[in-house]
Amino acid sequence: MIILLGGSGYVGSAFQTVMRKRGLEYRNLSRAEVDYTDTATLLALLREVRPEFLINVAGFTGKPNVDACEMQKAETLMGNAVLPGRIAEACAAAKVPWGHVSSGCIYSGDGPKGKGDTGFKETDTPNFTFHTNNCSFYSGTKALGEEILDSYDNVYVWRLRIPFDNEDSPRNYLTKLIRYQRLLEARNSISQRYEYASACLETWLRRLPFGKYNVTNPGSVTTHEVVEHIVKSGVCRKAFEFFESEEAFMRLAAKTPRSNCVLDTTKLEGCGIHMTPVHEALDQALASWKQSA
Amino acid sequence: MIILLGGSGYVGSAFQTVMRKRGLEYRNLSRAEVDYTDTATLLALLREVRPEFLINVAGFTGKPNVDACEMQKAETLMGNAVLPGRIAEACAAAKVPWGHVSSGCIYSGDGPKGKGDTGFKETDTPNFTFHTNNCSFYSGTKALGEEILDSYDNVYVWRLRIPFDNEDSPRNYLTKLIRYQRLLEARNSISQRYEYASACLETWLRRLPFGKYNVTNPGSVTTHEVVEHIVKSGVCRKAFEFFESEEAFMRLAAKTPRSNCVLDTTKLEGCGIHMTPVHEALDQALASWKQSA
Repeated sequence: MIILLGGSGYVGSAFQTVMRKRGLEYRNLSRAEVDYTDTATLLALLREVRPEFLINVAGFTGKPNVDACEMQKAETLMGNAVLPGRIAEACAAAKVPWGHVSSGCIYSGDGPKGKGDTGFKETDTPNFTFHTNNCSFYSGTKALGEEILDSYDNVYVWRLRIPFDNEDSPRNYLTKLIRYQRLLEARNSISQRYEYASACLETWLRRLPFGKYNVTNPGSVTTHEVVEHIVKSGVCRKAFEFFESEEAFMRLAAKTPRSNCVLDTTKLEGCGIHMTPVHEALDQALASWKQSA
Repeated sequence: MIILLGGSGYVGSAFQTVMRKRGLEYRNLSRAEVDYTDTATLLALLREVRPEFLINVAGFTGKPNVDACEMQKAETLMGNAVLPGRIAEACAAAKVPWGHVSSGCIYSGDGPKGKGDTGFKETDTPNFTFHTNNCSFYSGTKALGEEILDSYDNVYVWRLRIPFDNEDSPRNYLTKLIRYQRLLEARNSISQRYEYASACLETWLRRLPFGKYNVTNPGSVTTHEVVEHIVKSGVCRKAFEFFESEEAFMRLAAKTPRSNCVLDTTKLEGCGIHMTPVHEALDQALASWKQSA
């Protein structure tokens, strides 16, 4: 049996869907049910339930966006750095292997070689962190979370970037682009949420080595390219407006810097786990678009 | 009535002694009694008890020293950054002014001008933090704690450095120097613990503006100078040994870099709060030294 922590959100529910489809028995634990943020409470549960595996989707992302984390620093730190550390401690003590939903937002840019590079590998040191002194508080805490997990050897660290799929929802990247008044031009890797959840589960089902995995659709897209896909699909035909520059975006719309980055997915592919190339994945999502009421 | 959080340790008990002497009514809260690390629990308590003031001495320092924090990163973050943020939130909601025991260990060096300078002021940006990428995990979390408190306007941030007094104890700087096999030469500001607690309380009793205060005995001392005081006093006459260099210390005795720094105390003195000059404070402690059994 698999324990899922905080599995009711946009990414967590994708894990639930994938596990149901694959016939994997799981239990989604809410904090209201069990305070899994307390190491002793979680450890007692693990010793009682004896799960084969645990998945942590819980974290603090800020609503409606990362700007909110600048105002809720303690909870951002708690959810993204202290919590994974406590789960790691409990899982180590109970000898339960597990996976942590991390994020690519601890990088900035196209890769270590700069513009035009093909992405950051798992071995590249994050460059959008407290240590590099250029990040949002959110990204800083996600990087600290990974730093804390570095000393544990029974955990998969699955890096997600900007989740999307074919269902209109405030957490869906495509919905966000359609609803925002103005967009920021940038190049990014992105993750179709069901493919992400499926690939993460595969790393464990195949008993791949523990450690970090970039789990995004191969390739990268610019905001303009995504907008072209949207317009071409007919899902939305409005005239999309863009900020003149990142400076204008920061001045007019944002309180804290955003991570825009490309992740290299050759490690995952080298393990035989193939996600749909990003342009194709976007076309598929838009071709089967389900508008919410 | 004053609420004291985590007041049973070396520094907390100094607050208790000073408050008793001054006839200040207080209640020392232990986590076993009330889980004050939970914002809602603390807020409910504050609304019930309606204290005039709260003092947070709780924090995670690592036993026997900061090297231990490198192995307990989640709890270090929790105790030194998340906890002050949660206390701040509860105190803001309950409109309770409060004071936080912070640390000078977020600086390194004699001052912003480098060697020979007379100390870092409260307005100087900390230079031994995650942002400057040179610190211990402990110092990083203490600096994050101050960063989180920056957005609250009803809190005193009292920076302590290396507490000592005249009672032999494993937490007393003088005891440490006497017991360590070898010493690291460095220049530091240090805080006599009762003078520290007394000065902190004064900032509130005098209704000084909220914000940061360096609370150390004026001046600075090198390790060699402290050893001279110890030898001269007769408290210990052994031949003190020193590491050849900071590199040797790091190689042989430490896992993570130590903060050595001088704090400027003119802000506190300008408010009329005078602590004993550091050399005199050391002589006083050693002249009345109480050896433990």
